[in-house]
Amino acid sequence: MGSIERIQRVAQWALDSQAKGFDIVLVVSAMSGETNRLVELATQINPIPYSSEYDLLIASGEQVAVGLVTLAINTQAQQMGSSATEIQSRKIAAKGFLGHHIGIRTDRVFSKARIQAIDTVLLKKVISEGVIPVIAGFQGVDPENNITTLGRGGSDTSAVAIAAALEADDCEIYTDVDGVYTTDPRLCQEATKIRRISYEEMMELASLGAKVLQIRSVELAAKYQIPLHVRSSFQPVPGTRVVSRDSLGEKMEQVVVAGVAADPSQVKFTLQNLPESSGGVAKIFGALSEAAIVVDIIVQDVPSHRSAGPGQWGNGGTLSFTVSKPDFLKARKVLEDLKETQLQGCRMVEEEGLAKVSVVGVGMQHHPGVASKMFALLAASGIPIKLISTSEIKISCLIAEGQMKQAVESLHRGFELHRIE
Amino acid sequence: MGSIERIQRVAQWALDSQAKGFDIVLVVSAMSGETNRLVELATQINPIPYSSEYDLLIASGEQVAVGLVTLAINTQAQQMGSSATEIQSRKIAAKGFLGHHIGIRTDRVFSKARIQAIDTVLLKKVISEGVIPVIAGFQGVDPENNITTLGRGGSDTSAVAIAAALEADDCEIYTDVDGVYTTDPRLCQEATKIRRISYEEMMELASLGAKVLQIRSVELAAKYQIPLHVRSSFQPVPGTRVVSRDSLGEKMEQVVVAGVAADPSQVKFTLQNLPESSGGVAKIFGALSEAAIVVDIIVQDVPSHRSAGPGQWGNGGTLSFTVSKPDFLKARKVLEDLKETQLQGCRMVEEEGLAKVSVVGVGMQHHPGVASKMFALLAASGIPIKLISTSEIKISCLIAEGQMKQAVESLHRGFELHRIE
Repeated sequence: MGSIERIQRVAQWALDSQAKGFDIVLVVSAMSGETNRLVELATQINPIPYSSEYDLLIASGEQVAVGLVTLAINTQAQQMGSSATEIQSRKIAAKGFLGHHIGIRTDRVFSKARIQAIDTVLLKKVISEGVIPVIAGFQGVDPENNITTLGRGGSDTSAVAIAAALEADDCEIYTDVDGVYTTDPRLCQEATKIRRISYEEMMELASLGAKVLQIRSVELAAKYQIPLHVRSSFQPVPGTRVVSRDSLGEKMEQVVVAGVAADPSQVKFTLQNLPESSGGVAKIFGALSEAAIVVDIIVQDVPSHRSAGPGQWGNGGTLSFTVSKPDFLKARKVLEDLKETQLQGCRMVEEEGLAKVSVVGVGMQHHPGVASKMFALLAASGIPIKLISTSEIKISCLIAEGQMKQAVESLHRGFELHRIE
Repeated sequence: MGSIERIQRVAQWALDSQAKGFDIVLVVSAMSGETNRLVELATQINPIPYSSEYDLLIASGEQVAVGLVTLAINTQAQQMGSSATEIQSRKIAAKGFLGHHIGIRTDRVFSKARIQAIDTVLLKKVISEGVIPVIAGFQGVDPENNITTLGRGGSDTSAVAIAAALEADDCEIYTDVDGVYTTDPRLCQEATKIRRISYEEMMELASLGAKVLQIRSVELAAKYQIPLHVRSSFQPVPGTRVVSRDSLGEKMEQVVVAGVAADPSQVKFTLQNLPESSGGVAKIFGALSEAAIVVDIIVQDVPSHRSAGPGQWGNGGTLSFTVSKPDFLKARKVLEDLKETQLQGCRMVEEEGLAKVSVVGVGMQHHPGVASKMFALLAASGIPIKLISTSEIKISCLIAEGQMKQAVESLHRGFELHRIE
């Protein structure tokens, strides 16, 4: 939700769609800047304000948007009525709902709650009466009826969850951008809008820094097979459809790589000469996890003349992993504490100023040459690779941050993403 | 609720009062300017936005304040704990509640709802656990669980209603001003803070333009005999206590006039030569009421040689009444329509630029000279009186708006209000 003009446009769109015969349910996020304003107020009181009162506070942004959108729909519907009598006799066109009104039940994890159930009885009744429900995204209630929130971008997840509960045919996500791109257009001029993409690819892209959708909303859409349409709330043009792999169709199957993602501000830790000990890996990552540090790429190199079991190294074993810059100092502290106690004699090397570039695509499962092509493209651009990590539909390389833009452009062109239509 | 500093001060005050052994319940209003901001957003969409979505929208201001005050109390309470372990083991000091959480039940009159019942079970449980409830003022829920609001200043009424439901010993109202004054300090430098005032006087002052308290909150306090203390949220000095007439005490009974109120921007209509007809008054005020016009002073003059029944005039009867400036044009339209249909032959005179000055005091019931003294004081200042209206504890005079300040000063000094201690 942006300005009043955008709210008026959403209202118009909802009434138009209803006039075309669709049953419409709107799920709204806060107006732009509103959540930041509320967070700013809270952090003036407490820099780490995560608790039930914080969720109660920041959920108010969506409440404002619900009020305004409902008001806009009802006002526009009234203006369409020709006489005062008709206006008075006309029943409301839209009705606003907060999380507790329609039982959006979540767990008790404030600020990162997960939806557990949605009661659709009232919603279905309202829809059957021809009224458009306007629902506050981002919020739910825990078992004690405390307001909970779903984390940044949580309104996407609310929309998909409600679509799933109502068995909707389609879930349209209106955002600041007009769709999902083959890469970040700020990094690569040749970035192209993706017409159709699979849930899996979208999840990889979302987790790799393409911040168009909250990743949980894509997981949920995949689970309940809800087709998503990511589109612009400014322009009425088709955006990106996120669908199941099966429904991608023949033509799209030929596309090997769907997109290139880039994540700057990575830091790499390397632990060398690790002592032989059982469960060493578990200890390291256990300690990092306890400090709430998210570890990304993990690479472990065991000298081949030793046969080490899982979680064990011989002397001289090497472990590398990356964390994002904001966690760097916290991670260093954890590792230094470990070095003094359980990892005595090992050597720790840090490397800052790194970036992760990744290519994502379901097609690469049937095209074994993607990895080697990626390495060749980076080599041809003179970009050394510091770490490699692969998954079923993704290959990531850690490189110098200063070469990130060049790497993205090289990969985008090399995999012919500028040709996608 | 003003700025973050004021919120911090409220939190500190609540914790201090609790430490002194009091059970504390906080009822909070929106931060200053917030409700205006929300109303402004709504009126951009619809100039007359009264409906359920409007209430849902503007109730969010109090939700923000509840979140921030609760956060401030819990944060300050944590900071008082000395070690991390103690902080973690400490249970919360405050908990936020919205209208629906504690069943603040109202009627269905959006934007002007009246409280019908408050469920105190949860509140009493929370209080018994030593937790400070922080409750959103201004809001409740109707029988369908829609959010309702209580009108401007409604948080005062919420506070008194909750105090009544909990049978509180005292209800403190923290406002922008440090108490109720004998008159508007902007009009008269000699205005003095009133230490103690009766509910009845406070109601008359509130309805006459001393906008310190919502009048319904005073009605409610009188009904349930809840002592109010109107005081400053900026300075910790005693304010004005609003109490029952019985508990005003001997000394105060000697004060004849408690305050002087002034209301600018009045318009007077006079209808002359009204035709003889049954129910004429009812028709006029019925039509005005239908157009939602609030009529204030009404004076009717029946020529004494005729014996007209209620609501009837002989030819030549005269009716005068006042409305406030914002209703002027609407009222003129209603009256002109009536003149063409049912009041043919009558003459309508309008007079703009008027003000109403009033003296209020329970003492005047036993001092019959108050009215004549008021007229004499105004006459001595050369201020002509256009209309007079009296009630049990109030006398109002309509005068020229340009003389309002002079009239207030003259009455304030004449009734020796500057001597009140």
